Parts: sequence; structure tokens; C-alpha cells
Amino acid sequence: MTNKLTGAAIIGQSGGPTVVINQSLVGFIQEAAKHDCITKILGARHGVEGIMNGDWIDLGNQSAETLEAVALTPAAALGSVRRKASVEDVAIMVEQFKKNDIRFFFYIGGNDTAETAHIVEQQAAELGYEIRCFHIPKTIDNDLRVTDHCPGYGSAARFVAHAFQGDDRDNRSLRGVKINVIMGRHAGWLAAASVLGKRNDEDGPHLVYLPERVFDPEQFIVDVKEVHDRLGRCVVAVSEGIHNAEGVSFLQVYAEMSGSAMAGQTDSHGNVQLSGTGALGDALANLVRDNFEGLRVRADTFGYLQRSFPADASEVDRTEARMVGRKAVEAAVSGEYGSGSIALRRLDGDEYQCDTIVTALKNVAKHTKDMPDDYIAGHQGVTQAFIDYALPLTGGITPMADLS
Amino acid sequence: MTNKLTGAAIIGQSGGPTVVINQSLVGFIQEAAKHDCITKILGARHGVEGIMNGDWIDLGNQSAETLEAVALTPAAALGSVRRKASVEDVAIMVEQFKKNDIRFFFYIGGNDTAETAHIVEQQAAELGYEIRCFHIPKTIDNDLRVTDHCPGYGSAARFVAHAFQGDDRDNRSLRGVKINVIMGRHAGWLAAASVLGKRNDEDGPHLVYLPERVFDPEQFIVDVKEVHDRLGRCVVAVSEGIHNAEGVSFLQVYAEMSGSAMAGQTDSHGNVQLSGTGALGDALANLVRDNFEGLRVRADTFGYLQRSFPADASEVDRTEARMVGRKAVEAAVSGEYGSGSIALRRLDGDEYQCDTIVTALKNVAKHTKDMPDDYIAGHQGVTQAFIDYALPLTGGITPMADLS
Repeated sequence: MTNKLTGAAIIGQSGGPTVVINQSLVGFIQEAAKHDCITKILGARHGVEGIMNGDWIDLGNQSAETLEAVALTPAAALGSVRRKASVEDVAIMVEQFKKNDIRFFFYIGGNDTAETAHIVEQQAAELGYEIRCFHIPKTIDNDLRVTDHCPGYGSAARFVAHAFQGDDRDNRSLRGVKINVIMGRHAGWLAAASVLGKRNDEDGPHLVYLPERVFDPEQFIVDVKEVHDRLGRCVVAVSEGIHNAEGVSFLQVYAEMSGSAMAGQTDSHGNVQLSGTGALGDALANLVRDNFEGLRVRADTFGYLQRSFPADASEVDRTEARMVGRKAVEAAVSGEYGSGSIALRRLDGDEYQCDTIVTALKNVAKHTKDMPDDYIAGHQGVTQAFIDYALPLTGGITPMADLS
Repeated sequence: MTNKLTGAAIIGQSGGPTVVINQSLVGFIQEAAKHDCITKILGARHGVEGIMNGDWIDLGNQSAETLEAVALTPAAALGSVRRKASVEDVAIMVEQFKKNDIRFFFYIGGNDTAETAHIVEQQAAELGYEIRCFHIPKTIDNDLRVTDHCPGYGSAARFVAHAFQGDDRDNRSLRGVKINVIMGRHAGWLAAASVLGKRNDEDGPHLVYLPERVFDPEQFIVDVKEVHDRLGRCVVAVSEGIHNAEGVSFLQVYAEMSGSAMAGQTDSHGNVQLSGTGALGDALANLVRDNFEGLRVRADTFGYLQRSFPADASEVDRTEARMVGRKAVEAAVSGEYGSGSIALRRLDGDEYQCDTIVTALKNVAKHTKDMPDDYIAGHQGVTQAFIDYALPLTGGITPMADLS
């Protein structure tokens, strides 16, 4: 037990948004309003930057109607930020906390976000300022540790599964090879979700390439040929993170293979830009064209729709995202924890159900979680164990139908 | 009045599919089953190719449950084809019609499809073979003549409007410039639908470029700068068909401007491939980057999801697509028409409502319909008149919400 604090609470949103990240914000607001020890409910604009600059708004006077409408609105209602807070940043933040009697800090995001909360906790302790620091999980990448899955993933997985169902039907209609590139630079969770609407081996995607396995361009061509010979068509799901044995992105590998100029952009860290560009899909399509003359080959990159499409969220995901926001407040005011990250825990039983637990920030900060081996089949594809894991998170996918 | 015929009916699906094209197929099957003069209900695999090759299935024994499930399944359940039937093709088709006592020919598709039906009608008449030829409209491009709008467009417009709502929220969260490329090589109807979820000038898309207007790269940069200066962010909707005053695709224009190799592929007609590649979006993003150093710039190409995403169809569109399939049968068996194309006609009144009319195949064949001038605002953007026209077809778009 720690002692109970009284003071203002501030929340921020960080990293790439999801369609349910505001559900967590609303869960937080609704729960915070119930507790007298929370004297003010503040929302920081664009995460840590808003805290450092004193740029925040009062969240205590939002109407119930506004909150429910915001909960259904994708992406960060407070604005987001891609900034790993430095030691200097955190010093400025702690100054703001002191000055404004902020005793509760909540940060919605992924592993970098948990790390920021962790650093704030440590520095505040060093400076002798008591504050409760809680991380609220979100990421479509589904790559956080401890938690069974991440709020935001179920909706993105639902979108990807539906997208492949429709695209596979389109590909049956006009035939050829269709390649779709899915978000997830380091972990294949979202690309794997492409299979969740399949009924059998005739349904696409017929090939699924994950960053947990080495991508071999020659084997890829063999794979495509096998499927196309069998069905006269082939739908491929590719994680944007595919790479060779040395970890080099396929986009760079292809540029060298083909002698073409590097098609992609690099970001400020020198990483190849994979989202917000069609370069990887186009490179894969060209690779197939180089090997199959005259074949109809198309590539789409699903891009930001995967994390922002407002009209196809998972109800399970919505409910759980609201729940983790609420639980963070409960944990923070309980006096049981000095800090923590909220995690979902799957309960035993035939019916899918999760409750929440609190884990230490250090267990979630920094590192991520790849797909385990028993979810991956061979050099491409996923197992039934993965489907059993992921399908309930989507709220269920209605199968497509054929004429009899 | 023409004389009434008795014999088999055959239907095919042609061109790029939509999410409701099977609604029209099911409407046809359900109505055909009611009429004794239709002795068999046949479905041709992959359109005219199935007819020429005798590759068709019996549609008369599908269960009601199968039909309703197929109606909700995107893309052509019978398979589609991109083939403008030649005079020789049609001669083979008419032979098949004779041999199998097929007296009713229905073809679901766009203007090329209507033209094929028209050629079949003419050649059969020359050969003295009596047959009823009916075109059932579908296209997400919404570019058919006579009809108020095309089945398939409302659902694609709904998807695009939702996609922009979510993407605009994502862009508010992390800021910068976001460019999204929308299908429609010749007409801007679908790109225009990007605005249907906007509440005001702060919501994106802030700029909408249609193929009905000349695309000037220099003006584009001025436009982006104006919006970015005002809001600190900018979301752009671009039709894949944008071109210069000579009709040259921007993709080719940019390749010459930038001295880079042509990023895109050309199709079998020598046209630049615009769908199934991210090349145009990437070229636009590079153009912006060339002019705004350090700005976050992303591009997505919505691709085939626009015509195939199964989980966000417009109910209005579903209903109307079913209706035109049914009406084609009613018209064909009525004895009132030798042939025709079914068109939707908007009724006067405050509540949106459409009925159907029959128009001659020649009125719909070959030519397409661009957006009229009173739907287009300046060199980019659309008018309220367009919104009033298009919004009811989507079934309505729920607005996004901000914190107060």
C-alpha cells in the first residue's frame, strides 16, 4: 500500500492513434469524475509536449453526449506526439506537475509511452515529488508485453480481415496476383489478422509473410507460382516489416536486386519509410511481374485506414479500451500502486472474456512482443492457435458466400 | 409492344466489381423465378467469355439463404471480365443463345457492358434471332448516362467519406500533409465523395482535385501551403485521373518534372496504371516534400478497398442494386421493350427516393458522364449541390466529434 494522494490528474495520448484510443480517454474521464481525491481533470495537447508547454484543457466539464461522440471518433482527441521524453523533457514536466499540483499522470500509448511514464516516475521520486504514473495500453501493432492483447488491435484486425475478404472476392472476379501490404514494422500480429475471414484454402490470403520470419524473394516467387497454378489467382498478405536474414528491409533488397533507384523515403532516424507510401507494394508487384510475363499483378498498401477507419470498429475492442481507461483511474486512486500499466488478462472458459491487472511500468516499457512460434506456420502463414487467439478480439467476422 | 418470348434467361457480370453487384444478381434471380416464360435461369462465368464457352451454372436452384448471403458478398459471384465483345465474339454468343434457346440476356456492368448488350441486340436482329437484351447498371465511378446515379457508387462513396473522416482525425493527431488517391480515371464522382463527412472548413479533405479540372502542380503547392499555414495540417483528396491541360497524367508529368524514371506501369492499352499501385500518391508526396523541407508528408492510395470492402456498404445502395436487377426482369418479360438499360430516377420531395425507368441501350453505351460544372467549386473542391446530390446515396455519414 502507498499513501493516497489528492490533486489534479492529467492525461495525454501518444504514438500512432487507433480507432478506440478515445474510448480509453473517455473511460478515464468518466472514472476520474467519481473520485474526490482528483481535484481537476486535465487533458494535455499532443502528449508530453502539452505538459511541458502547459498546453492542456479542462476535461471535467464535457457533456455525457460529447464524451460518447468523442469515444466513437478515431485518433487522438487530445492530439498525439511521437517524442520519447528525454531526461531534460521530464525535468520540465515534473516542474509543471509541481506548479499545478498534478498528482496523477496517465499516458495512453505503446511501449515508448510506458517508458516515458516510467522515467517520469523515477525522476519525480528522485526529486521527492509524489505522483502516481499510469500507462494505458493502446497499439494496433499488438506488441506490448504482459497484456493478452492491446486495445486498438481488435479493430485494426477486424478492418484487415474484412479488407482481405472483399479483396479476395475482387481477385476471384478478375484473377491474377494481388499483394496487400499491412502495417507492423517489427511484429506480424496485424498482417496475421488477414486470415481471420477465411473459410478454407481457396479463400485468400493464400500467402502471409510476417516480419518474424526471413523473407526470401526467390521462395516468394515459388510460393506465388504454386498458388496461381492451383487456383488461377493468388492473394498475398505482406507485413511492411519483411526483411532478409540480416534484417534489411525488402524494399532496400529489391532496389539492389533490380538496380533501380531506392523507391522509398527514409525517416528522421534513417529507417526506410514504410507507411504512407506504396513503395514496398510496388516493389513486390514488380518482382512478380519480372517473373510472370503478362500476368495481372496489383498491389495495395492499406496504410492509415487500418488504424483510423471509423465505421468498422470491434465492439469488443471498444468495450475493453473504455475499461482500461477506467481501470487506470481505479488503480491510481486505490492506494495499492505507486505506478503501473494496465494489462488485459484472458479468462479461462469457452466464452471469450478478459479482466484487467496492473503490472509494473518496467515490464511494459521499451521492449515489444513478437508473435510466438506456435502462432506461425512455416515460412509463411499462421496456425489455428493464432486464429483462436485473435478472432474473438475482432467481435467476429461474417464469412463470405458462394453460389452453390 | 413487342411479342412476349419464352425461353432461358442468362446473366453475366462485367468490369470492375462493386460491393453490391451481387444484390443486382440476386434481384434478377428472385424475379426471374416468378415468371413462367423464363424456362431456365443461367449464370455465365466471367461474363461474355462464359457465354462464348458455354461455361454457365444453373441459378434456379439456389436456396433463399444462399442468395441472401451472396447478396452481402462483394465482387462478382459469377466472376467478371474486362472484354469489350467484338463482332466475332457476339456471333459466337448468338450461336450459343440459339443452341440453348436463350431468349433473355442480362448484363450487369458499366457503359462498355451496355455497349456489348447493344451489339448483341443488333447482331441477333440481323441474324433474325429474337432475344431480349437488358443492361443492369453498376459502377463505383458513377459515370453512366441517363441514370441519376449508379448502383455501387453509394457504397464506394460511403467508404471514401468514412476513410477521409478517420484519416483527417489521424492527421490532426500527428499533423503534416496527407494525400489520399481515389479511384476514377475519367470522372471525379468518387473523389468528390471524400467531403461527405465534413462538418466545416477545419475538417479534411481541405483540397479536392478532380479530373474534370486541369491539375497544375504549382497551384497545388500554393494550395497546400495556404491550408498548412492556416491549420498546421492539410488533407488532400486526389482523383487518380488528374492530368495537365493536354490530358497527360500527373504521374507522367511528374516523371518529366523530376527527371526520375517513370514510376508507374502501363497497361495493355498503353495507359498508365493508376489502380493497384501507389506510384501517383508517392509522386504527389515527393512533390510536396520537394517544396516543404522537413514537413511530415504521407500518401495513401485507397485502391481496391473502395469497391470491395464488405463491412460498410450503403443500405440505400444495397436496396437499389437489388431493385435494378428485379426491374430488368420485369421489363424483359413485360413485352413492352425489346431491349433496354435500367436507370434510377430521383423523385421530387424532401425525402430522398428513386424509382426506375427503362432507357434505350444506345443512350448508355459507350459514353460516360463527368461531374457537371455546378457540382465543382473552382479548380479544386465541390459545391453544396453535389453534397445534396450524393449524401443520401451513402445512407448518411455520422459526423466526427471534438472535445468541447
